[in-house]
Parts: sequence; structure tokens; C-alpha cells
Amino acid sequence: MLSFLSDYTDGAHPKILERLALLNAAPQPGYGEDEFCRGAKEKIRRALGREAEVYFLTGGTQTNAVVISSMLERYQAVIAAETGHINVHEAGAIEYTGHKVIALPAHEGRLDAGELAEHMARFYADGTHEHMCFPGMVYISHPTELGTLYSREQLRALSAVCRRYQLPLYMDGARLGYGLMSPAADVTLADILDCCDAFYIGGTKMGALCGEAVVFTGKAPKHFLTMTKQQGAMLAKGGLLGIQFDTLFTGGLYFEIGRQAVERALELKAAFLEKGYPLYIDSPTNQQFFVLTDEQLARLRKGAAFSVWEKLGEDRTAVRFVTSWATRPEDIQALRALL
Amino acid sequence: MLSFLSDYTDGAHPKILERLALLNAAPQPGYGEDEFCRGAKEKIRRALGREAEVYFLTGGTQTNAVVISSMLERYQAVIAAETGHINVHEAGAIEYTGHKVIALPAHEGRLDAGELAEHMARFYADGTHEHMCFPGMVYISHPTELGTLYSREQLRALSAVCRRYQLPLYMDGARLGYGLMSPAADVTLADILDCCDAFYIGGTKMGALCGEAVVFTGKAPKHFLTMTKQQGAMLAKGGLLGIQFDTLFTGGLYFEIGRQAVERALELKAAFLEKGYPLYIDSPTNQQFFVLTDEQLARLRKGAAFSVWEKLGEDRTAVRFVTSWATRPEDIQALRALL
Amino acid sequence: MLSFLSDYTDGAHPKILERLALLNAAPQPGYGEDEFCRGAKEKIRRALGREAEVYFLTGGTQTNAVVISSMLERYQAVIAAETGHINVHEAGAIEYTGHKVIALPAHEGRLDAGELAEHMARFYADGTHEHMCFPGMVYISHPTELGTLYSREQLRALSAVCRRYQLPLYMDGARLGYGLMSPAADVTLADILDCCDAFYIGGTKMGALCGEAVVFTGKAPKHFLTMTKQQGAMLAKGGLLGIQFDTLFTGGLYFEIGRQAVERALELKAAFLEKGYPLYIDSPTNQQFFVLTDEQLARLRKGAAFSVWEKLGEDRTAVRFVTSWATRPEDIQALRALL
Amino acid sequence: MLSFLSDYTDGAHPKILERLALLNAAPQPGYGEDEFCRGAKEKIRRALGREAEVYFLTGGTQTNAVVISSMLERYQAVIAAETGHINVHEAGAIEYTGHKVIALPAHEGRLDAGELAEHMARFYADGTHEHMCFPGMVYISHPTELGTLYSREQLRALSAVCRRYQLPLYMDGARLGYGLMSPAADVTLADILDCCDAFYIGGTKMGALCGEAVVFTGKAPKHFLTMTKQQGAMLAKGGLLGIQFDTLFTGGLYFEIGRQAVERALELKAAFLEKGYPLYIDSPTNQQFFVLTDEQLARLRKGAAFSVWEKLGEDRTAVRFVTSWATRPEDIQALRALL
Repeated sequence: MLSFLSDYTDGAHPKILERLALLNAAPQPGYGEDEFCRGAKEKIRRALGREAEVYFLTGGTQTNAVVISSMLERYQAVIAAETGHINVHEAGAIEYTGHKVIALPAHEGRLDAGELAEHMARFYADGTHEHMCFPGMVYISHPTELGTLYSREQLRALSAVCRRYQLPLYMDGARLGYGLMSPAADVTLADILDCCDAFYIGGTKMGALCGEAVVFTGKAPKHFLTMTKQQGAMLAKGGLLGIQFDTLFTGGLYFEIGRQAVERALELKAAFLEKGYPLYIDSPTNQQFFVLTDEQLARLRKGAAFSVWEKLGEDRTAVRFVTSWATRPEDIQALRALL
Repeated sequence: MLSFLSDYTDGAHPKILERLALLNAAPQPGYGEDEFCRGAKEKIRRALGREAEVYFLTGGTQTNAVVISSMLERYQAVIAAETGHINVHEAGAIEYTGHKVIALPAHEGRLDAGELAEHMARFYADGTHEHMCFPGMVYISHPTELGTLYSREQLRALSAVCRRYQLPLYMDGARLGYGLMSPAADVTLADILDCCDAFYIGGTKMGALCGEAVVFTGKAPKHFLTMTKQQGAMLAKGGLLGIQFDTLFTGGLYFEIGRQAVERALELKAAFLEKGYPLYIDSPTNQQFFVLTDEQLARLRKGAAFSVWEKLGEDRTAVRFVTSWATRPEDIQALRALL
Repeated sequence: MLSFLSDYTDGAHPKILERLALLNAAPQPGYGEDEFCRGAKEKIRRALGREAEVYFLTGGTQTNAVVISSMLERYQAVIAAETGHINVHEAGAIEYTGHKVIALPAHEGRLDAGELAEHMARFYADGTHEHMCFPGMVYISHPTELGTLYSREQLRALSAVCRRYQLPLYMDGARLGYGLMSPAADVTLADILDCCDAFYIGGTKMGALCGEAVVFTGKAPKHFLTMTKQQGAMLAKGGLLGIQFDTLFTGGLYFEIGRQAVERALELKAAFLEKGYPLYIDSPTNQQFFVLTDEQLARLRKGAAFSVWEKLGEDRTAVRFVTSWATRPEDIQALRALL
Repeated sequence: MLSFLSDYTDGAHPKILERLALLNAAPQPGYGEDEFCRGAKEKIRRALGREAEVYFLTGGTQTNAVVISSMLERYQAVIAAETGHINVHEAGAIEYTGHKVIALPAHEGRLDAGELAEHMARFYADGTHEHMCFPGMVYISHPTELGTLYSREQLRALSAVCRRYQLPLYMDGARLGYGLMSPAADVTLADILDCCDAFYIGGTKMGALCGEAVVFTGKAPKHFLTMTKQQGAMLAKGGLLGIQFDTLFTGGLYFEIGRQAVERALELKAAFLEKGYPLYIDSPTNQQFFVLTDEQLARLRKGAAFSVWEKLGEDRTAVRFVTSWATRPEDIQALRALL
């Protein structure tokens, strides 16, 4: 059975598995002060081309909850697109820390700078705004939950609004590598560093067993480590995260994984389009969305695993196919044969 | 340099590292529904000798925070010994979820059943107790933070008080294997199953890279998985935890790791005693505590890493030496030579 | 200067002020166990025509936060209309207690039963719903924040959906008396008792100095008083609330206040309509909304206080006029002269 | 039946009840922006002899929860004496906001500056303190829950330690007036202003129906009003609090209430001592504590209401008698006759 279920279903990149053995070479201090974390942070800073504070956390929801709750004042809320992961698929993890998620309209998963500006203007124009949650930061995902990307212009426009209103801009980069390596990519790491106050470089969905690397482009929130501990997010054997990111940022592996998986995804998309399947959304990254009839759905399910995204009425269903480091050209060929 | 710093400084047991490669054998569903988690749960149930709900989480503070906050009603507090990990070293993780930790006196790290009973009697006798936090569960650690163990009688006595007052009893087993395999062990897994409503089988400090196995002896709290997600504690690639526990519970590896490390710890203790060093506390498990003079402290530090536990005034310091799966007989010999 | 700013700007109904002196007649136990609270609860139950648990709290946001957070499980969210007070004007008080507010579309302030049913169906149909907040109760306001009312049919339809999905239905009755006494009122107290699991009878906006009476039509959440204390919402001198509700529910004063204020509001509306001012929304209760040109706005402001609701573009502004127990027929006459 | 149950059982000072009628004189803006609040704040500042930010809240637990949670960073805890109200009798209200209460030993209700300094030194000396809650402020009550007072020297010593460690010092003044007007009072308002960063002037237990006046000697936490709203603590008709404090701070009424009640309390104490009853604690304020035999307890209960403080074993009980604005000299005479 072919699998396009998700990018977290495929173990880890073989190089990562290999290098885990290094963890046993010598005792290491705990809680992220080991040599692997130090090395990985250094390599990430080199990839970024500048100084930055880097922290490793274990998973995406955890990272969002820790970063957002540590950057907000307690009277502040985070703004996100309606389809944003924090607004939908994190079981209320942000609200559990006491903060509201203010949902603005999503445009194929993206926040619109104009609408954000309008929201902020309306907020401060409202004479009763002291009785409301203060918008305190902005959350975006890139690629979005729908595989789409911000253009440089869109990202800059968002960032400009954020700065006007002193809203830190935070990017959820669970699939950042796919976004950076898509042929459609307009936004570079340098743009992200320019525009965002914090973002994370996703590991779990990019070939690691677990792990996300949080980058603060300015200073990290004071006592960030203590807050990490307070949310149960500090790993005793931090080297597990360090060595994975060290591997991903050695020889450009992170970017290579992104490049290959997007290549596979675009071949897959081409195959569907050739056969006349309509797109549900036009994604340039490793998640691809199509519309299937019930007959097609039933037929494809016999040979491939993928996920149902949304029922679209009567006889049609939106589905998602995802590629990862493990997807081979022959998998796409085999899938094409099923279409 | 010899290392006795902690049991989370030594990578992972080689069998675990070896078997991680299996994660790449085939795609697996995410979030703990993979075959490794299923297998590991089955093996744990077999080791327990009965049915029980088992869940895997990543680390100790996380496990305590998720389990306690999901078992308490919002008007309830958890009772712990003053020295309990949740009361001291978790950065207020329990309070962050909204719950008070009620600290009772610690007796070499242990809660006393009589004092617990007295506390409960006083609470309900107080006419104003509706203005107070209701004690809602009891937290103990076994071994305690000081390496000591409950006797079966002590555990049963605690359990009896808990049942009288309908307080679930929860055991933090971060180092459970060392506690079960100490020659001084009185409490068995069967006793724990009889006496506790929940406990966890620590992995991180017992040779895993990360991971703790939570066992509910009755039913798990409703929607436990959703609450796990809500606290950012759900791993996408759950197989990472599953395969480690599968390995630890294959061929009794978990218990063997415990047995060996305690054997090393007792050799280490014997060496210190032989040389006339006073014990700070008399521990039968893998953490050993001694009192050093400043001269001794300075001298030992040249050849071995260990931790300062507490300054004891003028010229004396309590220190902690910890063994793990990685401690070899020759390490003890080498340490003995330094004493 | 005429004042139509709000229904909480006018002190208290004279009968309430008079009867406060009774608080000094004899010492009373604290925390709501005084004779005035007992008496008021009895009178409220008589007005309801059945048994019910009644509790007094101080203000509206407090009441919503205490009731909602005590009725929800921690993995649950509350559903509200987008315009619902808890979603907009309570500074994130619900989220501060750890719970998400799920906003559904508002139809002149009302939730639609069909849309609620659809939301619930979609939620349970979503295979990933365990990664989402579980909808745990439904919040409505009656009258709504826009002065509008649910019809009996609408309320019953909502209640039916709630019961199908085991969602307690909670009604914010900050202005309940105005809703019950409007000539357009379709919903009676008996309907509310039939359809809701909890609601509150607003006092602050109905002539009291402060105070809201929470009614649980079934059993109150266990240890509700302790949770009230935990949220800082328990008044030491509970008699202050008791005597006010005793007064409001003696001789039908509560309903009379509602009746009169709505009568004034409808006279006011008639005056605006006569003069050709467009309605912003067609409200049958004590809040009236009109659309003014800039010239009209400037002119009216010279003689009357009222609030700006929303800027409607270029030259037009939605404004709100509110009546209360203190609004006299001659105030409406004087206002009419200004129009 | 004579009543010495508490200082919140006796309605309100007649002058307060009288002046409530003023609330109906003219419409007032809501939420504390009315003329009564403005006037009361001005009078309080005059009594304090300096500028200060003043806010009105409704009750003691609420005030503690709002002030403490708005002054702490999320990784910080508040230090209190073990017997402190926030540690015992507020149903975990502080922990509900996410913060730990660190309990230090109580000395007749007081924190000791030396022990505080030692705690702080130990905290920062501990190499693992980043894994612990950071002490973030200090809470004291004056008078304490046991009626005792800090001396000026004790208060200054505490304040000095607090400043050394940048810990804001907050005083719970639920019964402040009694503390200031005791013949044993050493601490003046000026001392409190010098030593504390925040404190509240209790109204509820000093003759008001409800209300506490929070004073920040420096700047209030940013967006304090929004946080007040977020915790459901903002009163719509703020004038209710304003007019009460205006009355209490007109003509020195607040201090006169304190003086008289303490005078009564000391007469009461003299009567008990004359008859040979032992003191449970030696209090110079309006709460008096004695030790009664069972026979005495039974006899006194026939003629007077008071509260049981603590069962002291076999045949003895500690009891509390409290005076207030309502206690008359003849009440003490009548009680004396019962002894």
C-alpha cells in the first residue's frame, strides 16, 4: 500500500537514525546544555547568516503553546487566520494557557495584511477597547495548513502592519523546509529574519523523529527556559533534539529533504492534473489537495493511503496527499498507475 | 572524567538505539496509534499481569502536569511531600494548570500515612473548608527524590487513607525500575497496582532517550488524549516512544537495567562507607548521598562529576552520586581509587 | 443633559436604596447564608414556579466566567454567537479560565439552531476531532447585545440541538426583565426553564446597584460555592445581593421595571421613526439603535448622552439609546424635541 | 444574642447607608469613572499625603487574586506566611491564576525578614533554580489573620529584603484601619507607603457593604483595568464603591471606626483576662482569641455568637471574638456578665 497520509508517518531520515548512536559517546549535561545542542544552534545560526537565540522543543503544538504564552502579556490575545493550526487543531492549547485566539478570515490559509490593519484600526477606534482582549501578537504558518505560501510582498506587508501596532510576528514553520525549497518560493530565510520576531524550523515533519527549533530574531522572552519547564516541554536528554538538528543542518540535509519532497509532490500533482482531477487548492509544497468523486475515492483507497480533508457535498470529497523525505519517484509512478 | 551526575546524562541503552531503525520499516499512523505503541502497551500489561490503560508521554514534569491536571477537578489540589518533585523542581507546572500543591512534611522524602489522615480529618472538621482547596489526590514518588523507598506497609497505609477520603493515589515512578530492583525493595509491581490509581514507569532515567509510560489501574480520565494534546504533550511520531518501551519490556531489559545500576550504586556506597565518609541519607537505590568536607569535595571533583545537593554549613556539603545503565564495575573501581 | 447612555448609569431603584437599611437590623451570617438571600431565593423560585438552585453573584462578566468555567470540563469550549458578550467585551475572561470560545455567525445577535447543528455534525464527522476542543456548552444572550429577542420556536430549536449533543444551554440574562416584558416577547420564564440548563436574572442593568441571580434548572455544579470563592466572586456581606433581589421580586418590581423601560424605549423609537431616522437594527427592548448623519450626531450630542455603536463609513454612524428604571416619559418628550 | 462572629456580619456604617441615596442624584459613567470614585480617590490620596494610583475592587479574595496575578510574571510565585489568607482561605484563587504560593513559617501570623532573606539566598545559590518558580513578590497581612501587627522595624526589615531581591511587597489590609488605630500600632500609613509597593485599604470589614481600595505606591501594572475585567472584578456601577470610600474618608470616619472597634476589643480582652481565661494569642486589634474549656464554650454559646478557631485537644478550644463598627460598650458589658 502506497502511503501519502502525512509527513509524520515515515520514521526519520536514515542519517538521523545513524547519528543517534553518537549520543552514547560520552556523558552530556542535561536540559539542552549538551554539545549537540550547542553545535546544532551554531549550525542553524550559520544557515540563518546572523546571530539569533535558538531553542529546541519537541513538537509543534507544544512549540506554539510555549512560544505564544511566553511572548504575550496576560491581557493579550494572539491573532491567527481562521484556519490556523492554533485555532483548529491544537485542542485549545493556547486558551489553556489563558489567552484568546482572535480568528481573522483565511485566504487559502493566509492572513491578509489589509484586513489585519483594519482589525487593529477598529480595535483602537473602539472606545470600549479596554474591555476587550488586546491583540498582542500575530501567528501565521508558512507553508499554511493548506500548503500555500506567502509571497515576499505579502509577508512584508503583514510585518509592516505588525510593527505599526507593535505586534510581534510569529511564524509556525512546521513545514518550513518545504516552503523554502518550493520552486514557487518567494520568501527566503533572510526575509523571515527581517519580518518575524520569532519562528520555528520544523523538524518532526521534515525528517526528524521529533523536534522543532525556535528562533527568536531579537531577544528571547526572559526566563524562557523556566517557562519551557513550567509547560512540561523541557527534555532531560536534550541531546536527542540537538543531534537531530545538527544532522539536518549538516551539508544542507534539511533543505535537500525539502527540495526532494516538493519535487515528488509536484510530480504527483502533475499526474492528477494529467488525469483530469480537479485541484481543491493549488499548493506549491508537499501537501497536495484534490477533489475526488466517490467512485475515485473508493478506487484510490484500495492502493494508497491518504487523508480525507473535507466532504464537499453529495458525491465529492476533498483529499490530501502528502510527500516526505521517504517518498520515492517510483511511489509517484505507482500512484500514477492507479489514477 | 568519571560521571555520576545523573541518570539522564548517558544517551540510551544500546538496544534501544539499535531498534530505532525499525521505525523506518514501514509508514505508521501518528499520535500513538502505531504498531510499536500497541506492542509496548501489550508487553507492559503482561509485565503488570493485568489489564490497564497505558499512555506514553515524553518526560517527567510533563507527565506529572498532564496526569495531575487531568485527574483533578478544578476546585481540587494535590497533596505531596514538601520535597516532592512537583513541589520543588517543576517550575510551578502544576500551579500553571490552576491547581495548588499542598505540601505535607517529608520523611526522607516520604509522605506519612498518619499525617495524611490527620490533615484530611482536620480539613473536613474545619467549618470553613468550603473556602479552601479540596484535597483531590495524593502524589508520591517511589523511589523518592532522595533515593528512599516506601515499604509495602507504608504504601498500603497511604492507600488506605486515600481510599477512606476518595483521594486517587498517584505514584511518580521516574526511577521506578531502580526502586523495584533494589535488594531493599519491599514494594512490587503488584503492590503498586493494588495501591495506586495511576503511576508512571519512568523511561528517561531508565535508559530511554525520552519517554514515560503512564498506567491507569482503573479507567483513564475521559478524553485523556485530547488533554494530552491541549498541554502540548502528544508526540506526532508516537512510535519513538512505543519502540523504546517495547524494547525495555522485551526480555526484561527494564528490570535488568534497574538491577545493574542499583548493584553499581551499592558498590559505590560501600566504597564511600569503607573510606569513612558519612552518609547524608541512607538510600538503597541508584542515587547515593554523602557528606563531604571542602577538601574532599575539591579533591573528588578533579576526577569525577557529581552534583552538590545542599550546603550544610561551614565546611560540609551534601553531594549526590547517581548510577545508570551506563555505569560499569570499572567506573566504581576507578572512583574507589579517588576516595 | 438627557442621558440614554446605558442602563447601568442610573444608581438604583429607590425601593432598593430604601430597603438597604434593613441590612443593619441584625447581624447576619456571611457569604450568602443570611436571611435576605434565603428570602430572595424563595421569592425567585416562586416567580419561576418551580424548584431551582439560585446563587447570587456581583456582575455580568463575573457571572459568565464563573458559570461557564464551572460547567465545562477542561477539554471543552463554549459556543457563542460572534457578537456574544463573552466573545467581545469581557477582556478574554473565559479564555483566562482556560476555555476557548467558539464563535458561530450571529443573526442580529442570535445563534441559529441549524448552524449549530451543522457545526456539531461537522465536528463529530471530523476524524481528527480528538485533536480539537470539544464543544461543551452553548451561550446565548436574551435579549441579545443588539436588543433583539429569540422567539419561542428559535429557543426551542436551539435547545433541541443542545440536548441532542448533550450541550448544556446557558442564557445570559443581563437584561432579562426587558426581554420578558417587551410587547414582542414570545419567550416566557417557563420557556427558559424548559429550554436552558442555567441562566441568570440580571440585576445590575435592571435597577440594582449590583448583582445577578444565577439559576440552575437542574443541579448546580458540585462545589459551586468553592469555585465562586476561587474566582474571587463570593461577597462576604451576601445580604447586599440578597436584599436587592428580595426587593426586585417583591410585588413584581423586577417585571414592572422591565415593562416601564421598554415602554419608554418604544416611545423613543417611535419618535425617531416619525422623524425619519433609519433604524440600525429593529429592537423590541430597552436598547434602541439608529443611524445618524454627522450633522444629526453633532446636534443630538448637544442635548443628550448616548453611545456610538459603530462608524458606518463616510458620513453615517450607528448609535445606541438605552432606557432604564430612571427614564421618565418627559425625558422622551424632551428628546423628541431635539430630533 | 450578642454577636462577635465577625466584622462582616453587621450591615454597614449608618453614614454609608445614608449617603448611598446620592447615587441617584444624577447619571454617572460606569466602570469607576463616576464622580464618587474620583472624589474618593482624591480623599484617599489626601489621607495618604501623597500621589498614588487607587483602584476599587469588591472583596478581599478578589483583590488579592487581581493584584497578585497582575503584578507577577507568569514564571513567578508569591511568598506568604503559612497562615496567610491567600495560602489557606481563598480556595486556591492564586493558583487558579497559574501562580504558586510559596509558604514560609508564620510567627503569630507574621513573616520573618531573616527567614525571607535566607529563603532568597538559598534560592539563588541553588544551581537548579531555573527549574523552580522564581519568587516574584511578597504578601503580608496587617493586621495578620491572627490580629497581630508588624512593628515598624519588622516591616522595614521585610521591605529591605524585598528591595534587595527586587520583590514587590504587597500588604493585605482587609482590616487595615484596626491595625492603624490600635494603641499598639507602631506602623503608620506613611510607613506602609515607604515600605510597600501595593496594599489595600479594606472596606468590607471596616464598615462598608463591600469594597477594597487598592493603592499602588508606584505605577499600577499596565492595563490594570483590563485585567480587572478579565477576572470579572470590574463593577458596572462603580459609584457603589466610590461613594462608600468617599464616606469612609470624609471626616476621618475610617479611622474612627477602627479606633472604636479596637477600644471595644480591648475592653473585651480585659474582661476575659480578669476572669482568668487564657489568651490563645495576644492580639492588639479587633480580633481576640481565647482558650475555652468545653464547659465554658457551652455556657458562652448560650448568650453570644463567636467562632471556633481550632480544637486544641481533649477539653480545650481556641475561639475568636471580633468587634466592628457595630459593637457598643453595652455589648461588652453584657458579655462580661456571661463570663
